[in-house]
Amino acid sequence: MTEQKATNVTWHEHQVSKDERFKLNGHKGAVLWFTGLSACGKSTIANAVDYKLHLAGKHSFVLDGDNIRMGLNKNLGFSPEDRTENIRRIGEVAKLFAYSGTFALTAFISPYKDDRNKVREVLGAGEFIEIYVNASLETCEQRDPKGLYKKARAGNLPNFTGISAPYEAPENAELVLDSDNKGIEALADEVIAYLQKNGYLSA
Amino acid sequence: MTEQKATNVTWHEHQVSKDERFKLNGHKGAVLWFTGLSACGKSTIANAVDYKLHLAGKHSFVLDGDNIRMGLNKNLGFSPEDRTENIRRIGEVAKLFAYSGTFALTAFISPYKDDRNKVREVLGAGEFIEIYVNASLETCEQRDPKGLYKKARAGNLPNFTGISAPYEAPENAELVLDSDNKGIEALADEVIAYLQKNGYLSA
Repeated sequence: MTEQKATNVTWHEHQVSKDERFKLNGHKGAVLWFTGLSACGKSTIANAVDYKLHLAGKHSFVLDGDNIRMGLNKNLGFSPEDRTENIRRIGEVAKLFAYSGTFALTAFISPYKDDRNKVREVLGAGEFIEIYVNASLETCEQRDPKGLYKKARAGNLPNFTGISAPYEAPENAELVLDSDNKGIEALADEVIAYLQKNGYLSA
Repeated sequence: MTEQKATNVTWHEHQVSKDERFKLNGHKGAVLWFTGLSACGKSTIANAVDYKLHLAGKHSFVLDGDNIRMGLNKNLGFSPEDRTENIRRIGEVAKLFAYSGTFALTAFISPYKDDRNKVREVLGAGEFIEIYVNASLETCEQRDPKGLYKKARAGNLPNFTGISAPYEAPENAELVLDSDNKGIEALADEVIAYLQKNGYLSA
């Protein structure tokens, strides 16, 4: 038994580095942080980018309300404190995905500049790509696919971004998408072009 | 402008399915949940499995104290409630990795049976592989690489699993590793063999 125990220490501990993970995937990992008003198109564009990356054999994953609010963050509400913790957790998870060699596409309103900047700070240089999906409040209110703006205007949704809670637009986003005037596919292509141009699509 | 807006609705929304992600990677995703006493070898074995999977071109990622306690769960302590929330969050993140087509290897003591079973429940059939790294308290106390058992015995570590807090061993783990008598590499190979035998290593 003593002999067998000794084998525990002969195995040299290996850590697979971030770069080795990037090499296996043939591209880098990064966080693509989509931010903007409700109904601005964040989630639809993120899913379109995810689909296009997948077709090109790249590894990506969308973190959005569907898989986060029902799971990891189901114990959080919409108060300013809970929104901050919501974004903090999403940032940390997105970072893990990026380090594993995957493009983490996050689609959350993330209205507070300070919260977004904190995520930027936990990531390395070039690993946080802030994408401002810019649609006017008017456009979003016209779309209103879930009737949320209507509810908020009627005073039935406290803390609703753009109506009863603030949205702090990014000032130095890596990418600004004009969602008032361009369609989903064109905007998704702009994101892919950004990744291509900045070397993310090779290891 | 009206024409351009219309393109928003012509893009058919695609969701990349779990199976399509598995196909891209050439293998399934799953959670490999290592549980056991402090110093039983969880993290070392998980990293050895990660390394071997990586060399074989498979996608995997280790979630452990190093990247979770300093990030996602840095606002949690070691009370029973915080341990439960710690494991819940890790389970949800591991699930996201598994759904993205990656083997999520988690290396946490996770002493409570109920907490581990809750993670099992949020995952689909076959997606949660519980791996009990079985080392006797005696073995772990002899190893004691960080001097934690010594501190706990001296009464300086409240809630230390095995000494001042309980460890509830799994009764129906998918895999039990004999860490008293076998070395790291042999145990890692047992995990790989389990994945191979049960069809996880192909899509």
